[in-house]
Amino acid sequence: MRTILIIGIGAGDPGQLTLAAADALRQADVFFLLDKGAEKHDLIALRQDLLAQFARADHRLVEVRDPERDRTADGYVTAVDDWRRERADLLESAIAEQLADGGCGAFLVWGDPALYDSTIAVVEEIRSRGTVAVEHRVIPGVSSIATLAARHRIGLNRVGRPFLVTTGRRIATGLPHDVDDIVVMLDAHCAFTRYTDQELDIFWGAYLGTPDEILVSGPLAEVAPRIVHERQAARERKGWIMDTYLLRRRAG
Amino acid sequence: MRTILIIGIGAGDPGQLTLAAADALRQADVFFLLDKGAEKHDLIALRQDLLAQFARADHRLVEVRDPERDRTADGYVTAVDDWRRERADLLESAIAEQLADGGCGAFLVWGDPALYDSTIAVVEEIRSRGTVAVEHRVIPGVSSIATLAARHRIGLNRVGRPFLVTTGRRIATGLPHDVDDIVVMLDAHCAFTRYTDQELDIFWGAYLGTPDEILVSGPLAEVAPRIVHERQAARERKGWIMDTYLLRRRAG
Ligand SMILES: C[S@@+](CC[C@H](N)C(=O)[O-])C[C@H]1O[C@@H](n2cnc3c(N)ncnc32)[C@H](O)[C@@H]1O
Ligand SMILES: C[S@@+](CC[C@H](N)C(=O)[O-])C[C@H]1O[C@@H](n2cnc3c(N)ncnc32)[C@H](O)[C@@H]1O
Repeated sequence: MRTILIIGIGAGDPGQLTLAAADALRQADVFFLLDKGAEKHDLIALRQDLLAQFARADHRLVEVRDPERDRTADGYVTAVDDWRRERADLLESAIAEQLADGGCGAFLVWGDPALYDSTIAVVEEIRSRGTVAVEHRVIPGVSSIATLAARHRIGLNRVGRPFLVTTGRRIATGLPHDVDDIVVMLDAHCAFTRYTDQELDIFWGAYLGTPDEILVSGPLAEVAPRIVHERQAARERKGWIMDTYLLRRRAG
Repeated sequence: MRTILIIGIGAGDPGQLTLAAADALRQADVFFLLDKGAEKHDLIALRQDLLAQFARADHRLVEVRDPERDRTADGYVTAVDDWRRERADLLESAIAEQLADGGCGAFLVWGDPALYDSTIAVVEEIRSRGTVAVEHRVIPGVSSIATLAARHRIGLNRVGRPFLVTTGRRIATGLPHDVDDIVVMLDAHCAFTRYTDQELDIFWGAYLGTPDEILVSGPLAEVAPRIVHERQAARERKGWIMDTYLLRRRAG
């Protein structure tokens, strides 16, 4: 039996590491790194910091090439499923070959592993195949949305009310009508610009928790152009961007 | 100017404290404790642990009596507003009297401060009155819902899809139709029992992150009676309960 730890490391600030995550880093013999192209730079730097500070001196790194994902496929979910299967194949071999029986392997996951991340599902798939016997544990982390709210010093919900967490792709086809607080992740196309005619406030943040952090908030109609501009400029400057935001309908 | 730190301390496991939160505990001169009746026992124990381990030896505790909340009021939001105002009065006096100018005060918040917690709003109200000059900072934490997902080793969202975070009170009058993953907090009345006729799975957790943790998951119709029973028994045994759950519509 091998143990796999799926460790949430926070959304960009090394101070967001939890004590339990630091312990988990000390337990692991092998760290499996999924190479993710564009998101590489930031993750790699934070990861190196954390490993240097917390992992055992004799830890090993095993890099697993991430399969190319067909982002143009018609069936988005199917494309993700194929990609996940292929990824499970690669990781299964890596675990079998690189992690001794009885050993402890770890994945470092950006933010919280329960939020728009496929690591849990991939490990679950490997487990269900039963070829390599693994048990796994998830160490929760501080998410980018908790960080967004903290930096703007707001709650995600209003008193007694719900909030929705969704993606840029989803809100591009319309905002939900029955919920007034909407957190948007994975928005590569500034979907918020479609709703500047509505009575919305936006709380936007990029590179949250890092020295490059940018925060903008205000009435959507007023600040949307500034966000689009800042986002574009930052992306050109750094070569990549990670941003998220809350859309809040103004109380009638 | 006084500094107020609003510190998320995780949902019950001392290992969920972040490094930044530990630093913040070391910075504070005074900790303001809101006495919350029923939730007292657990919070007090975790709090004492954390203060003993991380706060400076010369830190002070200031207990602020929480105003009685009219839970029977017709206008729930109004009742909460009144209560919040009264609470702001009490805290404003406590800060003015107990925290020296230039000093650093702190609030420890269960889980993440952005989730169904009034501390940020109360401090914001004190600030907006302008009677005592305060600046405040929020340190995000690991929420109970991140912990719920981690312990069940699931994601909160399914691939590319949204999820809703809401309250027991809200879902008692119906489940939303356009979202298939619903996280429910603050449910004192097992509202999930109303939906055992639907194709739902439930992932339930109580006292998450603590030694008393209970986890139940499965098809809702099948496990709902067991959850009701376990919840009731645990509540009688301990005198209080904190639980949360995810309802997940089965894929057609
Ligand atoms: C693949 S998801 C992973 C989310 C992660 N598991 C979490 O808990 O935040 C990536 C998305 O998270 C958001 N995100 C993650 N880290 C961020 C950061 N430091 N600043 C702003 N947004 C971030 C962005 O919306 C990005 O598109
Ligand atoms: C007033 S809200 C505060 C939430 C907190 N700020 C957070 O981030 O989890 C209290 C609700 O959170 C949930 N909760 C908090 N801690 C929990 C725990 N350790 N186990 C289960 N549920 C918890 C329950 O639904 C409870 O009714």
